Amino acid sequence: MATLTVLGAGMMGSSLCVPLVDRGHDVRLVGTHLDDHIVDSLKQRHWHPTLKFELPQAIRPFAVGELEQAMQGADAILLGVSSAGVLWAAEAIAPYVTPERPILMVSKGLAFDADKLDVLPDVLRSALPPGVASGIHPAAVAGPCIAGELARRVDTCVVFTGRDQTMLDRLKTWIGGGYYHVFTSTDVVGVEGCAALKNAYAMGIAFAAGLHAQAGGEPGSVATHNYEAAVFAQAVVEMQLLVKLIGGNPASVVGLPGVGDLNVTCNGGRTGRFGRFLGMGLGVAESIRRMEGATLECLEILTVLDRALSHFKRAGRLKNNELPLLEHMIAVALHDAPVAMPFDSFQPVSSV
Amino acid sequence: MATLTVLGAGMMGSSLCVPLVDRGHDVRLVGTHLDDHIVDSLKQRHWHPTLKFELPQAIRPFAVGELEQAMQGADAILLGVSSAGVLWAAEAIAPYVTPERPILMVSKGLAFDADKLDVLPDVLRSALPPGVASGIHPAAVAGPCIAGELARRVDTCVVFTGRDQTMLDRLKTWIGGGYYHVFTSTDVVGVEGCAALKNAYAMGIAFAAGLHAQAGGEPGSVATHNYEAAVFAQAVVEMQLLVKLIGGNPASVVGLPGVGDLNVTCNGGRTGRFGRFLGMGLGVAESIRRMEGATLECLEILTVLDRALSHFKRAGRLKNNELPLLEHMIAVALHDAPVAMPFDSFQPVSSV
Repeated sequence: MATLTVLGAGMMGSSLCVPLVDRGHDVRLVGTHLDDHIVDSLKQRHWHPTLKFELPQAIRPFAVGELEQAMQGADAILLGVSSAGVLWAAEAIAPYVTPERPILMVSKGLAFDADKLDVLPDVLRSALPPGVASGIHPAAVAGPCIAGELARRVDTCVVFTGRDQTMLDRLKTWIGGGYYHVFTSTDVVGVEGCAALKNAYAMGIAFAAGLHAQAGGEPGSVATHNYEAAVFAQAVVEMQLLVKLIGGNPASVVGLPGVGDLNVTCNGGRTGRFGRFLGMGLGVAESIRRMEGATLECLEILTVLDRALSHFKRAGRLKNNELPLLEHMIAVALHDAPVAMPFDSFQPVSSV
Repeated sequence: MATLTVLGAGMMGSSLCVPLVDRGHDVRLVGTHLDDHIVDSLKQRHWHPTLKFELPQAIRPFAVGELEQAMQGADAILLGVSSAGVLWAAEAIAPYVTPERPILMVSKGLAFDADKLDVLPDVLRSALPPGVASGIHPAAVAGPCIAGELARRVDTCVVFTGRDQTMLDRLKTWIGGGYYHVFTSTDVVGVEGCAALKNAYAMGIAFAAGLHAQAGGEPGSVATHNYEAAVFAQAVVEMQLLVKLIGGNPASVVGLPGVGDLNVTCNGGRTGRFGRFLGMGLGVAESIRRMEGATLECLEILTVLDRALSHFKRAGRLKNNELPLLEHMIAVALHDAPVAMPFDSFQPVSSV
């Protein structure tokens, strides 16, 4: 049995506690300052209000003010914060970080730093105080995982990625088993690149469903699936190109982190709903309004990619029209262009 | 304007006539001996009974006995027959085949011939009389295309594949345009391999929905998508391995012919419904019964692959457990094993 402390009581961090307690660990779930209502609800009756699910009683909830207590004797630190919370989290966990205590993040995203795109484990490491960061290789979870399904113990395959294979193996031994199938990869740039990019591309794939709905079509097996599948294929082609561009292994796209996570993101959740609104022609402002305050990872990552693509083109590392789908999604979601998919600029198969 | 003769008035051959007449060609749709009721209905009122759709009046229907008339002055021959009809079609078109008259097939499948898997353009060519076959390179259509959507002019991206690039370009110039976006590839083994394999893998991906339904779950964004996406990812990994094994280019999996067609096959149609029944635990016989006589391409291709895998293993070209998902699908669909997905034998990313 290990003692595992999860910081961030959102849907993903909280659902990850389920396989942890099922493996018999002492699991401490610490809310951030945004999670007080969640922690209160968990303390009172184990009910997670955003997961809308009763979590196992063995999970021990802590408020952010109780972090020090929750970190006592922790064998590993798990970060369940959103990409926007990574810098805050780095400061919060800094006093507890040691090379012997693995860090595993569920946060997904990319950051553009002057001339390069960084994955979040590297952002976290850079944000740790210099004396602390040395010898630290934060790991991250990628692959297709809808939080509400993991909490319900649906079979789930994920990839733990990081630069230290020994630490990945330790984390896998602790955490994997039963319905939570853990694989490992040291291609942290490729694997985490996929985890971030899929949120952008799932939005564009959902344009099809919006166009179909707008035209009065009913969901069914004859709908706008040909359109949707062509965009899905192009998304995978462009993900390989982007992963290569940022220094990852394009093979990571062909598996759980890439096509697997893209598939699940199209089937569940917010990103698809938002893309559908855009496909219906509602425009950016109205589409955001209809999302009722939900976090839109797709807009975050598209904003980062918009800046990065301009830079890569200026630097001669990317040609115009190499990423026609991404450029169209940026135009639609950030600059309110109408949806007009550039199919004839697509590439039938990957050339990476 | 060209004169194009389509043999086979099933759903795919007939829907392909829509972009052809929209491009202004003289389009002749010839039913096989199985299509008499379709041809009658088209002659009477342009209604296609299995597409359940009124086709453009410009499409000229012919019965199988009128083939000679329909072939007069044809610039190209399009084959809309099923994989089971390829040998019959070779005989039927033999009198009209010349090197100047391109052949384009929509048939999808693989044939196992003693020690190798052949794609259908090669099967067709081998079945033509020796004097006729010389200089003939049949092309084929692959990529994500639900026939009922193409007939309704939904944007559709496909790949024309064959060994003669000049002929592919000619076909593309005639047929592509508007909502029918045509790309070309000379990797006929890889592209057609994908077209056949996706029917097997889409069945296994649908096990998830069946398990969910059997457990009393409702469709929705929290369901069994994690399971489904993990199987999708493994399907893509194994398709790369199989395409390489039969001598195709694994890159063809990363694009329209592979991930694109697999995606659309999961969203529409028969194969998914059949896999769902198997996932519900109904067993092979009852699942077939519930399909009410629909053609099950997945059983055809799995039967071929079952024989081929045994051969490849005996020949030392394939190790045990390199294709755990395919072997499990064969066990379930051909040998009535219960669904028990071998997740822990999966590969997180492609190693091809």
